[in-house]
Amino acid sequence: MSLKDNPLGFDTVRLSDDGRRVIIIDQTLLPGELKEISLSSKDEIYEAIYLLKVRGAPAIGVAAAYGIYVLADQIDTQSYDEFIKQFKEDKEYLNSSRPTAVNLSWALERMYKVCTDNHAKPVDEIKKLLKDEACKIQEEDIEISKKIGEYGLELVNKGDGILTHCNAGQLATSRYGTATAPIYLGYEKGYDFKVYADETRPLLQGARLTAWELNRAGVDVTLLCDNMSAALMKEGRVNAVFVGCDRVAANGDVANKIGTSVVATVAARYNIPFYVCAPTSTIDMNTSCGDDIEIELRPQSEVTQMWYKKRMAPDNIKVYNPAFDVTDNELVSAIITEKGIARAPYDISLREIMK
Amino acid sequence: MSLKDNPLGFDTVRLSDDGRRVIIIDQTLLPGELKEISLSSKDEIYEAIYLLKVRGAPAIGVAAAYGIYVLADQIDTQSYDEFIKQFKEDKEYLNSSRPTAVNLSWALERMYKVCTDNHAKPVDEIKKLLKDEACKIQEEDIEISKKIGEYGLELVNKGDGILTHCNAGQLATSRYGTATAPIYLGYEKGYDFKVYADETRPLLQGARLTAWELNRAGVDVTLLCDNMSAALMKEGRVNAVFVGCDRVAANGDVANKIGTSVVATVAARYNIPFYVCAPTSTIDMNTSCGDDIEIELRPQSEVTQMWYKKRMAPDNIKVYNPAFDVTDNELVSAIITEKGIARAPYDISLREIMK
Repeated sequence: MSLKDNPLGFDTVRLSDDGRRVIIIDQTLLPGELKEISLSSKDEIYEAIYLLKVRGAPAIGVAAAYGIYVLADQIDTQSYDEFIKQFKEDKEYLNSSRPTAVNLSWALERMYKVCTDNHAKPVDEIKKLLKDEACKIQEEDIEISKKIGEYGLELVNKGDGILTHCNAGQLATSRYGTATAPIYLGYEKGYDFKVYADETRPLLQGARLTAWELNRAGVDVTLLCDNMSAALMKEGRVNAVFVGCDRVAANGDVANKIGTSVVATVAARYNIPFYVCAPTSTIDMNTSCGDDIEIELRPQSEVTQMWYKKRMAPDNIKVYNPAFDVTDNELVSAIITEKGIARAPYDISLREIMK
Repeated sequence: MSLKDNPLGFDTVRLSDDGRRVIIIDQTLLPGELKEISLSSKDEIYEAIYLLKVRGAPAIGVAAAYGIYVLADQIDTQSYDEFIKQFKEDKEYLNSSRPTAVNLSWALERMYKVCTDNHAKPVDEIKKLLKDEACKIQEEDIEISKKIGEYGLELVNKGDGILTHCNAGQLATSRYGTATAPIYLGYEKGYDFKVYADETRPLLQGARLTAWELNRAGVDVTLLCDNMSAALMKEGRVNAVFVGCDRVAANGDVANKIGTSVVATVAARYNIPFYVCAPTSTIDMNTSCGDDIEIELRPQSEVTQMWYKKRMAPDNIKVYNPAFDVTDNELVSAIITEKGIARAPYDISLREIMK
């Protein structure tokens, strides 16, 4: 296995050979079934994102880029005005599928800019440029993960125990992952990591996806429930935590999967470094701090019955189910980007990196 | 609802009116079905404890006391020697159902002592004394919960948000619970608490039992996943944490359901008091500190597949599944017993309480 290759032997997201469909792994079927599905209508693309068939901020960005291209290609007009009107409508619809991940709007805006920058060109030419841009977004995404892997590997040692939360793995990106990139790269170099994967309630991305993909790639991985991290850390079995992120504010506050700030708090108690792997596309200099990040609240059924044989909580019980939490910058040991490693004070280091 | 009454309208454990059967709520059927089952043979009683149909250290103790009485009552002899031989056999069999539960052996030994203290009396008289003793064990258990409720209520205010982990509720005791006793008492007095119940992976006692019993009693309760506590606390919605415990060491270190120390760590970050509700029977002055408490490791299937429609983790994945963790005494704001409230330094305050 090499970071030059594909640790898992498939792509999380890709464009079909004929360019008319977005093809994704349906992650809701994992770990039981590895199945690709094709998306070509706006509802299919919206639902794939909303229902987490494709998830993880970078992968959502790539899926949205391919998605908006596939929809643009279906717009049957030679009029730029008609074209851009429909494009904007599609863009806004896809953008409403999930509020917290910045990559979704980032990718869609980048695609939109291709249209406006080239408004004088024929619509068919614009469509071609959109396809090129979407492919470029994916290529860049692969390159970003590679760089994050290299920078991240500098922060750990052979034989280290590494804990991760949720899935910031290959399944969350185009390839290699963000939090898992140092793990895959270390595996290739014989670092012999012991990796611990939080199961990550309520949707169990850690159990279903991270444990699955690391195990498939041959990495030594152990699954645990989210509430077991303190016991594990107290035993001295964790040397570093790597997590991904959905959005980083300008002050270094980090929005990521619910439970991330619990891991960060517990890691701080045991003096274990807590590293956030963040493509610069997730760093939002327009958001000053974590309080300004909108946190998606998801359905209570995810907690009370999803995945279960039978209902696991009383009928009509009130449920608190935020999809993300915000980890305060003071708990973050470093933010690892494709352009280097940022450390506190983040208001300065992130501005430097984002120049 | 009054603490003088019964918040749930049923007893977790009781003796049938004719005194020939132990009647328990089968907790493995909750929250879907509220069903009492009758136990009269030694195998039925053993299995009820072994299969967690009755659970929670205090409730197990009471079930064992009634159980050994019911079995003793079936011994058809007037000879004390024959009687005590069979009694010991039954006692040892029941005691092996969950060898780690302290209250189990404690209750059985207490019942045994009734026999030996009264060996000169007729067997029928001994049987009567055994029944009285079992009832007394239950009455004492109810009284202990009431006192813990009263002491605990002194530590909170009207309208407070209270978080609890696992089930230290009525279902874990004869009545009222330990961690829930202040909640039920506050409810009776119109304190209008907002209670938050951690679901408590892997076996979901919080979702299945705590959320269910509080909801049934009319308490305002909201269910959350274990990894959501930091987000909730950061929002300022939690004013105090109440948990039960399995064992308290002489220095105040607390062994309780896995995840308890995570809650304590996060609560400390947000300056939220963390209270442990502990009948003095769980305070073990012979265990000097938490490091001396052996932590039970449970089967991986509890994490990877139990309760699920389908397997939620890859086949043959390694799993870390400790049943308990130890919360360091420095994270414990107070230990609430039926004899009063202990605060740091615990080596002194607990010794005082246990005098």
